[in-house]
Amino acid sequence: MRFVLNKAVNITNMNAGIIIIGDEILIGQVVDINSSWISREMNKIGFRTETVITVGDDGKSISDAIDRCLDVADVVFMTGGLGPTKDDITKKVICEKFGTELVLNEAVLANVAEMLGRRGIALTENNRGQALVPATATVINNAVGTAPGIMMEVSNISHPEPVEGSSLSHSVPFVSTSSFRQTQCTATGGTDSHPEPVVTERSRSIEGSVSQKLLFSMPGVPFEMRYLMEHEIIPLIKKHYNLKPVFHKTLLLTGIAESILAEKISGWEDSLAKNVRLAYLPAYSSIRLRLSVYEPDDTTEGYIDSKVEELKRIVPENIIAYEDIKLEELVGKLLKDRHCTVATAESCTGGKVASLITSVSGSSEYYKGSVVSYCNEVKADVLGVSRADLEKYGAVSSTVAEQMASGVRRLLKTDYAVATTGIAGPTGGSDEKPVGTVWIAVATPTKVVSRKYVFGKDRAINIERFAASALSMLIVEMEKEC
Amino acid sequence: MRFVLNKAVNITNMNAGIIIIGDEILIGQVVDINSSWISREMNKIGFRTETVITVGDDGKSISDAIDRCLDVADVVFMTGGLGPTKDDITKKVICEKFGTELVLNEAVLANVAEMLGRRGIALTENNRGQALVPATATVINNAVGTAPGIMMEVSNISHPEPVEGSSLSHSVPFVSTSSFRQTQCTATGGTDSHPEPVVTERSRSIEGSVSQKLLFSMPGVPFEMRYLMEHEIIPLIKKHYNLKPVFHKTLLLTGIAESILAEKISGWEDSLAKNVRLAYLPAYSSIRLRLSVYEPDDTTEGYIDSKVEELKRIVPENIIAYEDIKLEELVGKLLKDRHCTVATAESCTGGKVASLITSVSGSSEYYKGSVVSYCNEVKADVLGVSRADLEKYGAVSSTVAEQMASGVRRLLKTDYAVATTGIAGPTGGSDEKPVGTVWIAVATPTKVVSRKYVFGKDRAINIERFAASALSMLIVEMEKEC
Repeated sequence: MRFVLNKAVNITNMNAGIIIIGDEILIGQVVDINSSWISREMNKIGFRTETVITVGDDGKSISDAIDRCLDVADVVFMTGGLGPTKDDITKKVICEKFGTELVLNEAVLANVAEMLGRRGIALTENNRGQALVPATATVINNAVGTAPGIMMEVSNISHPEPVEGSSLSHSVPFVSTSSFRQTQCTATGGTDSHPEPVVTERSRSIEGSVSQKLLFSMPGVPFEMRYLMEHEIIPLIKKHYNLKPVFHKTLLLTGIAESILAEKISGWEDSLAKNVRLAYLPAYSSIRLRLSVYEPDDTTEGYIDSKVEELKRIVPENIIAYEDIKLEELVGKLLKDRHCTVATAESCTGGKVASLITSVSGSSEYYKGSVVSYCNEVKADVLGVSRADLEKYGAVSSTVAEQMASGVRRLLKTDYAVATTGIAGPTGGSDEKPVGTVWIAVATPTKVVSRKYVFGKDRAINIERFAASALSMLIVEMEKEC
Repeated sequence: MRFVLNKAVNITNMNAGIIIIGDEILIGQVVDINSSWISREMNKIGFRTETVITVGDDGKSISDAIDRCLDVADVVFMTGGLGPTKDDITKKVICEKFGTELVLNEAVLANVAEMLGRRGIALTENNRGQALVPATATVINNAVGTAPGIMMEVSNISHPEPVEGSSLSHSVPFVSTSSFRQTQCTATGGTDSHPEPVVTERSRSIEGSVSQKLLFSMPGVPFEMRYLMEHEIIPLIKKHYNLKPVFHKTLLLTGIAESILAEKISGWEDSLAKNVRLAYLPAYSSIRLRLSVYEPDDTTEGYIDSKVEELKRIVPENIIAYEDIKLEELVGKLLKDRHCTVATAESCTGGKVASLITSVSGSSEYYKGSVVSYCNEVKADVLGVSRADLEKYGAVSSTVAEQMASGVRRLLKTDYAVATTGIAGPTGGSDEKPVGTVWIAVATPTKVVSRKYVFGKDRAINIERFAASALSMLIVEMEKEC
């Protein structure tokens, strides 16, 4: 895969640093998905992540990582290292490093007690520990968990002279204790089940102090981290740095390799106005193109629309959506718009297409089900594929794919159906039908079409590509029906 | 989730550092899965990963990251930053940093030409670039891709005095050019399709030079990185450090929360001999317990077996396997041992159970297929669930789960079947059946059983947990049948 990033990435020259804390990550027990999420969301508001440092639940390592991130970043995000089994190491390091101490925050304690109360659990000494926060921190209320978020405002002064014999210059962070005292951002308004948090006024304004760096500590649980980022921290950062909104337009393309797309649209890309950034975001069987305009004005939307119109003339077959949307979400949107239903029949993808479609909340509105026919018997008995054709053409064939699609459409009484039959590997390939070969068929109210794709040797990646291609082909055929 | 790691992790006091290189990771376009894989595999041979640093395709950042890793680690792994779109930045940094230059390696060039030739592609200037390697490096042949692996042997001397005003001490790495010259590890023997690489003798021995640190650069493509690690680099590290084999015994447990398990077996854990390390490796619906013995002797296996026997008496219901195996692999193993087949009927898991089962290569031997019944109509029409029972008990009920399991077992003519019906969320819950509720049923040749589980609020996590619980329950019921 080729990544085209030349014109992408950093819109504001603001940098982020991320520290992921946890022994469980360093022994490979848990894959860190927090850093990529934070990077993606921060990139949308114009930040470039300079580095991600993963360290264990160890004070010295965490402290060093903070130093390194403050060297290169304006905003530092830390996740993990909280809770009793972690000895609340992150909070302790923050206190030592920035010369403050842990104090009990009554509002956090009340939140913890309420969260536990709802589940019928009494408050323990461990839970009280979660309400201890650094005295000089701004507390960010966690409406979906017991560990609060914490914000520290810090400065760093560069060491005046690089040290002889060392290739690095260093900085000594210190806390700007004068600029604010412990305050709290709380969730207010909204309903019980879906609170709509509002960041309250800070006790002292930090506006204008852009040279100050922000350090955030959050729980490592992805769900809680995301909630805090979306509802509290990103709004707070936007306000702190007085960030202008960034205008984004995202297009979803399919049926074209990234390198070919890059070549086809290079002239168009060069013609983009200086303040427009283009990012290629490739995925299996699709590419998102994101146009970003920093400091947009009244003319921005019109200008971007005109450039999108130009692009449509260059790659008329390939644009399938004009918004930032996943393939499985687009399938759902198109079906809901049409008040139509879909079913799937899967051989080589073994339930992956169904799994993607049903990963979307509300998919029961348009998705009726799937027959995973992992053997020829089920293809014949349940889906009604002709035994003679299975014999004559083999299971991996246009004919069988089309009969699977028609069969499941008939069986589950849907408007559309998509079917896959192929060889995921590593075994089962032949010269004629190598590993990586798949036939995909789409049945619509008016016709059945099929197409062959050939991918690589890796079983897991093939299944992902087969499934994404099935969704892409379904989308393309649905859009043709309009 | 709670992580119990006190006694785990570092067996040999050898440390690893990992550097992940790529702009695409820092904008959140790609999730890094390499570092957790490397950490897990290195942990098995007794290394603890001290830190993972992710940086962009930028020379200074990569160079700094190497310094930092060499400060804390004996072995440093780098992935990414290779290829024409990356400007081969990693190799250039290595050359600059360790005072060497890129030279054309004929063996690598031949490998690249052969790899491309098989796909009918002619060699370009870019491809020749892949055959350029640092003159003092040991080249590690990549049998599954065009970018070779590289090993550098380096030393680092700590800066004599910590710098005043800085909390960090630094080290200046230099290459030990005298200890070896450019050599190559090649894949020999085996067949064309599955070469079995053998590390050839190094031109000069590096045995005994344990104070020397090893720096590896690998392609970022996970498949290629894993191949290089498994077939070339891990054997090389074992040899270099003259590592004694580590004895591992892994047990797979289900049906018990980690915290409860930890409490139940704490006495047993304390009774383990000093040279035995215990690691808890939790996953959805299962926990692996790994016992590791460094420097095992003739008595080790017998001793561990006796401790496992003790454990069986403490948690007799929960141990489902005595090897390091995934739930979906164990399902396959049990079915193959019994010459039996299985089918699945899925509502709330929407194909996830099928997808897990078919992720295992060779699953077509025992897996016949699935009916994903995402609406009641399909439950009734295809699986034969009673419409009256659907009405009376609701789709999320013991009765419906059992009829789904029996129905799909009958329809697909299998020995076993497992069915799921629940509320993944975020909507669709009620006081009586909150989001996170699932009924799972297993049909065997002799009976049908069902059980209710209640998990959390997050849709994606619920689907994972429901699916893992379905596999666990299938395993438990299959093992009971014996």
